[in-house]
Amino acid sequence: MIPSQESIAIAGAGLVGSLLGVYLAQRGYRVDLYEGRPDPRIGNVYQGRSINLALSDRGWAALEKVGLAQAIRAEAIPMVERVIHGIDGSLTTQPYGEAGQAIYSVSRAGINQRLISLAEQHEQVSLHFEYRLTQVDFASGTAGFDTPAGTVQIAPQRLFGADGANSKIRRLMQELPRMNFSLETMDVAYIELNIPANADGSHQLGPIEALHIWPRDQFMLIALPNLDGSFTCTLFMDFDGPNSFASLQGAPAIQAFFETQFPDVAALLETPAQHFIERAPSPLALVDVYPWVQANRICLIGDACHAIVPFYGQGMNAGFEDCRILDELLEQMEGDWEQVLPAFQQSRKANVAAIATLAKRNYIEMSRLTGQPSFLLRKKIEAKFSRKYPKLWVPLYTMVTFRPEIPYAEALRIGDEQSAIMDEIMTIPDIEQHWDEDWVLAKLYQLACRQWGQALTFHSSHRSCSDAKADG
Amino acid sequence: MIPSQESIAIAGAGLVGSLLGVYLAQRGYRVDLYEGRPDPRIGNVYQGRSINLALSDRGWAALEKVGLAQAIRAEAIPMVERVIHGIDGSLTTQPYGEAGQAIYSVSRAGINQRLISLAEQHEQVSLHFEYRLTQVDFASGTAGFDTPAGTVQIAPQRLFGADGANSKIRRLMQELPRMNFSLETMDVAYIELNIPANADGSHQLGPIEALHIWPRDQFMLIALPNLDGSFTCTLFMDFDGPNSFASLQGAPAIQAFFETQFPDVAALLETPAQHFIERAPSPLALVDVYPWVQANRICLIGDACHAIVPFYGQGMNAGFEDCRILDELLEQMEGDWEQVLPAFQQSRKANVAAIATLAKRNYIEMSRLTGQPSFLLRKKIEAKFSRKYPKLWVPLYTMVTFRPEIPYAEALRIGDEQSAIMDEIMTIPDIEQHWDEDWVLAKLYQLACRQWGQALTFHSSHRSCSDAKADG
Repeated sequence: MIPSQESIAIAGAGLVGSLLGVYLAQRGYRVDLYEGRPDPRIGNVYQGRSINLALSDRGWAALEKVGLAQAIRAEAIPMVERVIHGIDGSLTTQPYGEAGQAIYSVSRAGINQRLISLAEQHEQVSLHFEYRLTQVDFASGTAGFDTPAGTVQIAPQRLFGADGANSKIRRLMQELPRMNFSLETMDVAYIELNIPANADGSHQLGPIEALHIWPRDQFMLIALPNLDGSFTCTLFMDFDGPNSFASLQGAPAIQAFFETQFPDVAALLETPAQHFIERAPSPLALVDVYPWVQANRICLIGDACHAIVPFYGQGMNAGFEDCRILDELLEQMEGDWEQVLPAFQQSRKANVAAIATLAKRNYIEMSRLTGQPSFLLRKKIEAKFSRKYPKLWVPLYTMVTFRPEIPYAEALRIGDEQSAIMDEIMTIPDIEQHWDEDWVLAKLYQLACRQWGQALTFHSSHRSCSDAKADG
Repeated sequence: MIPSQESIAIAGAGLVGSLLGVYLAQRGYRVDLYEGRPDPRIGNVYQGRSINLALSDRGWAALEKVGLAQAIRAEAIPMVERVIHGIDGSLTTQPYGEAGQAIYSVSRAGINQRLISLAEQHEQVSLHFEYRLTQVDFASGTAGFDTPAGTVQIAPQRLFGADGANSKIRRLMQELPRMNFSLETMDVAYIELNIPANADGSHQLGPIEALHIWPRDQFMLIALPNLDGSFTCTLFMDFDGPNSFASLQGAPAIQAFFETQFPDVAALLETPAQHFIERAPSPLALVDVYPWVQANRICLIGDACHAIVPFYGQGMNAGFEDCRILDELLEQMEGDWEQVLPAFQQSRKANVAAIATLAKRNYIEMSRLTGQPSFLLRKKIEAKFSRKYPKLWVPLYTMVTFRPEIPYAEALRIGDEQSAIMDEIMTIPDIEQHWDEDWVLAKLYQLACRQWGQALTFHSSHRSCSDAKADG
């Protein structure tokens, strides 16, 4: 079938739906993008909230492939490091990668509006706002929408559910026989807070090109910079138990909590106690569903089938990567959807499961470990070793964030192997004093070669001990 | 609060709901049992299908505690062994336990009708049929039903969701924030078949007091005896793939399949090819949800919160055990529901997770391993060792089936430890020739003592090496 004669419907003009629309239009398909909400470029559907997200290399790779990276880069702020704020006001920095590497703070609303406009520029893309999907016939692939003009039925050749973590298509799909589904809600929840810009539009907090963290074990505050001079902050803490949204009651106690726990930023936050009281904590949930594809016609994508928690900054990036991989498969399989959709599901399943696992684990890293000297030392040893043997040792964060060619599942596996090796290194007596001595790196080299030197199954394109010798 | 002044509503008058009604009435509560379907004692709600279940000691323990065991035993057929039918027509038997131990084949419809009648005899129990639950207010604990006489609202002190694997209360609960839920559908599905009785009411297949299995790796047939001289058979096989419900097409091929695979029973089955074609394969699903309790007023129980697959014969038994444990907690905590419901959930969660795991694994054992000589030998060695050291080694099947005092989670843990030990025993060269020699048992004794001899955390009431010395 000639792509231009195939009509594809996408439910959801969010981040993934819009980008998918561009991808499919560029391959020549006719694309209809249906969005339940009004056009976000008119009025403010985000109700004044300024959510931002971290865009990193997997996201960039997906944007670049369809030529959108430059347009998005114009509204992104690089964050080259974590800045960790101690309870005593001390600052510690931890670079995210090597020189030139950064993750980027983007406005969720801004990037979505931009992606919708970019999709709209394609003549094969039609946008339909206020189309609320209500019904799907999974055998025939038809779907029904409530619209301001009444009910509308569509019968596209393919239908994608890019309708987010609370996907209506997925919830309808769950009622089919033979479905597998899981929803996991974390004990930790969040509210958003704000550090406004100075009167001249400059940032009140520095450094600007950083992700700021106030790790406090049971809870944490983070701040990401915005282009308008503000920072968007997120307070993560448990719903209930000690030090929780439930246990912290009354404006004076809440104000005191901010001043005690976040002394260097409490005065910069916009009415934190008031927001703490007024804003209901939002839950964080992970969604896992299988299969993603029904009758080779209807396919879930992005958060609709693999919503994760935000602690690795990979939710949007994983969804964008879905689009890039789907496009790769369309090319390889010459647009044969009967092959493409099962292959897409197969290819993505283990990888999105791996990033779900990594994202859950990273809450511990962010809220607790980044505040511990032994953890920072461990990362410093790894970074030094990696600089010396860049092919033998790519730190886990780097694999996930800066190396889109390494699938998430492989990053997870290698990361676990690295972790076991670093556990052994950290048992060296007085490692704090000796870490910078040559024999420590020699020991690490020996352990790494024992792990990977002979392992033929190991992804040799990334690194090997013979490469390492060349490195060193 | 005095129990007689507390009203408790139970949604679902199935096996668990009816038994729970009896338990709570015996503690003095006023109980309303609401069932969506008509009274199963009038007409036949099972549409002529004769499902049977295996009732074992956990179920009996729960029935005995409220004095119902004798009434149920009258309609149960003991099954003392597995009878394994080879493809060549050979028979192998494998006792389920020691002399006097059996699992019992009961009719699902029969036991349910009996339990409803027994519940009805309590003056504190009121039965309400054709009350279809449609709505629950989880904060206030009120619920709404559609009834033949219109909509009815209730406001009980407590509400139990005993409404089965497809529980409406659970599906409503899933929409609340902070829920965790998983639904897992197996690749294997089933249809029921029938071996009718002889004209004189006797059984066509023997032995009668047995569970018959035709294990064929990729699929299996089982048969359980009924009191009316018939056997209910279940054919388990994959939905699709090779040797599946999807791949087997057309009456001649299906008839040939039965004759080739089940040569000794094909002629006894009632029109198997016709039933194979007409009956849609039923999926087998596992349900896991958390929490079970909302606002300390509404609580799920039985399949509604922990539906499992049938391969360990423990679904009904686990649900009955729920009732017994809840009753124990009501006694210990003197009817303080604020304590009882969280404790119930806490106590049952790990145990029902363990039986879910065991039940999934047992499909492999039943369909594949029971057909393998090495597996049967392994079981024979275990049985012999267990007879010699009954406190040191209780086989996993025995712990699960005949030892209600051992929680499922502990049975699973100990079973895994036993399995590792038996793996080692089975590596003995020519074990087939030597298994009955004393040194093999001595080696097993040594391994068992190494595992448990020093383990203070081990549940010492069950067995220990010092006990074993007393045994031996």
